[in-house]
Order: sequence, then C-alpha cells, then structure tokens
Amino acid sequence: MGFESADPGTVRPGGRTARVRAAVLQAAGDALAEQGFAHLDLADIARRAEVGKTTVYRRWGTVTSLVADLLLDMAEQSLPRTETGSLLGDLKANARLVQRTLADPRQGALFKAVIAAATCEAKTAEALHRFYDIRVKEWAPCVQQAIDRAEVPEGTDVHEVIRAVSAPLYYRLLTSGESLDEAAADRAAEAAAAAARAGVYLRGEGGLA
Amino acid sequence: MGFESADPGTVRPGGRTARVRAAVLQAAGDALAEQGFAHLDLADIARRAEVGKTTVYRRWGTVTSLVADLLLDMAEQSLPRTETGSLLGDLKANARLVQRTLADPRQGALFKAVIAAATCEAKTAEALHRFYDIRVKEWAPCVQQAIDRAEVPEGTDVHEVIRAVSAPLYYRLLTSGESLDEAAADRAAEAAAAAARAGVYLRGEGGLA
Repeated sequence: MGFESADPGTVRPGGRTARVRAAVLQAAGDALAEQGFAHLDLADIARRAEVGKTTVYRRWGTVTSLVADLLLDMAEQSLPRTETGSLLGDLKANARLVQRTLADPRQGALFKAVIAAATCEAKTAEALHRFYDIRVKEWAPCVQQAIDRAEVPEGTDVHEVIRAVSAPLYYRLLTSGESLDEAAADRAAEAAAAAARAGVYLRGEGGLA
Repeated sequence: MGFESADPGTVRPGGRTARVRAAVLQAAGDALAEQGFAHLDLADIARRAEVGKTTVYRRWGTVTSLVADLLLDMAEQSLPRTETGSLLGDLKANARLVQRTLADPRQGALFKAVIAAATCEAKTAEALHRFYDIRVKEWAPCVQQAIDRAEVPEGTDVHEVIRAVSAPLYYRLLTSGESLDEAAADRAAEAAAAAARAGVYLRGEGGLA
C-alpha cells in the first residue's frame, strides 16, 4: 500500500502479527483516502480490517501512532530506484513514479490526508519527514553517479536535486486543480536536471545560475 | 493579514461592514494559525473578533465559506510584484516574499492550515486554487518581460515558471522539518531561472533539457 508500491492490495507474507498489521494499515490507508484524517477512528479501522478493536487499541493506542506506523510501512513498501545510465533518465523514472502515485485516486487522497495530518500533529509530521528522508536517500545515488560521470558539478547537494523533482508535483497536487500528467513529471525531471547542471544545487553559497 | 502582506494587524479603511470583516478574518487567521482548521469554530471566532455571533453566522454561515473569504482577502491584500530588470532578480524577489511569508510563524501555520483544509473540502480547495492563480498571475509578467528581453525562449509557459519558484519552498514547508531560509529562496529562484533558460517550460511537448 506504500508510496510508489506494487498493488496496494498486496498482503505480505509473515505470521499472524504481520497479517494483522497489513490488514489494519490497509484499512487505515483506505479510511484516510476516503474520509481524510479528521474523521479517522480506531474502532472504524478495526471494523474495516476485521480485527478485534482491543488488538488495534493495544497495538497502536492512538490514531497518531497508527498513521506514523502507516508512513513507516509506506516507506518500507516503496519501490527501489531504477537506473537508466543518465541523470535525466533516472530523474524522469523517479518523477513518473511520484506522478503515478499522486495521480492514483486512492494514493493521491492518502498523501493529501497524511500531509494534512502532519500539519496538525508533531508526531505525524516527524513520521512524514522520515518517510521523505527515506525516499530521497533511495534516489540520491543517481545524482552521485551523475557527479561521477561529470554530468553535474562536484559538490552538488544530491538530496536537494531529488527533492526538486518531487516539489512541483506536490505543489500542483496541493495548490491547483490541474491533473498530474506524465508531461508534468517529465518537466519536473528536466527542470531539476537543468538546474543541477547549471550548478544551482552546489552546497553552500547559493549556486552559479 | 494576507499572503506576503504588510503588518497582519493592519486594519483597512472602510465602513463598519469592512471593519467587521477585517476583524473576523483577522480572528479566523489567528485561530487557524493557532489551532489548525480542524478545531475552527464560528462562535470562537466571533468571540476573538469581538463581533456578535449572529453577525458572523448571518454573514459567513459556515467555517468553509469563512475560510474561502479569508483566502480571497489574502489574495486582495497580497503585495504587488517588484521589478528588478532581470528574470533572476524578479524571481528572487518573488521567492524571498514567499519564503518570508512561510517562515513567519503565524503565516506559515496559517498556510499549512488552509492547505490542510483544502484537502478535506472542495469549496476550500477551489478558494485555495483561486488564491494561487491570482498570485501566479501577479508575477507572470516578469517572465513575459524575460521573453521580450530574449532571456528565456519564446513560447515559455510563464505561469509554470512562477509556480516553479514556489514549489520547492512549499515542499520543504510541508515535507521536511528544515527551516525556510533565504538560501532556499535564492536556490528556488535560480533553479526556475536556469530551467526556464534551458527551455524546460516551453509549452507543449516537454522541453529542451
């Protein structure tokens, strides 16, 4: 059910505990996508997951820690980066993955919900920040490889280049009614690559642009 | 109290109706910044604004339409663009304005709250989209001037360049715990300028990058 993951419905292997967690997190994701975080309720999630209420309360205790666990799971389940041999190719693959996720009705609604929840609760915000740190670290090596290939200057902030790919897609999702299409994804990747080549993401004092 | 506006406390001229609106919107903005949108309550806002509850209910009716009016006011109150004579200078001025606004504790919290509210309510989302449309249209002419100066290619999507300046600042605000400093603002402007020069924002099929 994770960000950029395989079929949301997939149930992972493991014992009863793992199956219960998978069912509850799936139900929590469904509830968030359908109703947003404001109406999230552990009893409702237990019903959806067909898991005992007491089990859910004992294991997660609060909606906040359940959402934090969901974000951890989304990071664990998210797909590894693909390697294409060029910075633009790698950044486009990343951008398309983000675009497909945010354009998916359930996943897009889920991301809006967890971002909204993070604006209200510090613990959820921490979990959200961890999620994005993991996603950025997953893709950062493609920028290091571009540095090694002398595609972008030595000293480029590799994490900032990866964030630059996602930023316009999230900005469009949250501040406009426009759909997130592949052209938006490619444009986000092209913009990040062009700025990186121009030295904009050099660490320290501003850039060269 | 608007985005990138002068002193939030400013009360604008006008008759009693205008003063009531200013007081109520100020109170609504304070409540959103302090508590987020989930706990917004018209009676509490009337109390804060020292305005009769019935006046607030008669005039705005629901929290949703009050937030929509607040966003309209934020757009009306927002500062006009500054002209520096170069694309990078203009985009940096824009980026610094956005960065100062989002880095301000009250304004940053207010923007997080309205973005979160927009994920839950279609009417609030429409009002938020209108707000950003107005801000983007306000700054877009600086990109047209850059086209006229042949700084960026003919056929560049001027609105997309302006959105590209804000995107990384909002992305950082919402997905990381990092502070929004001037270096982040300058980098956002430099990235947008470099990508625009490279032809990334040409309308239609992708870009040149």
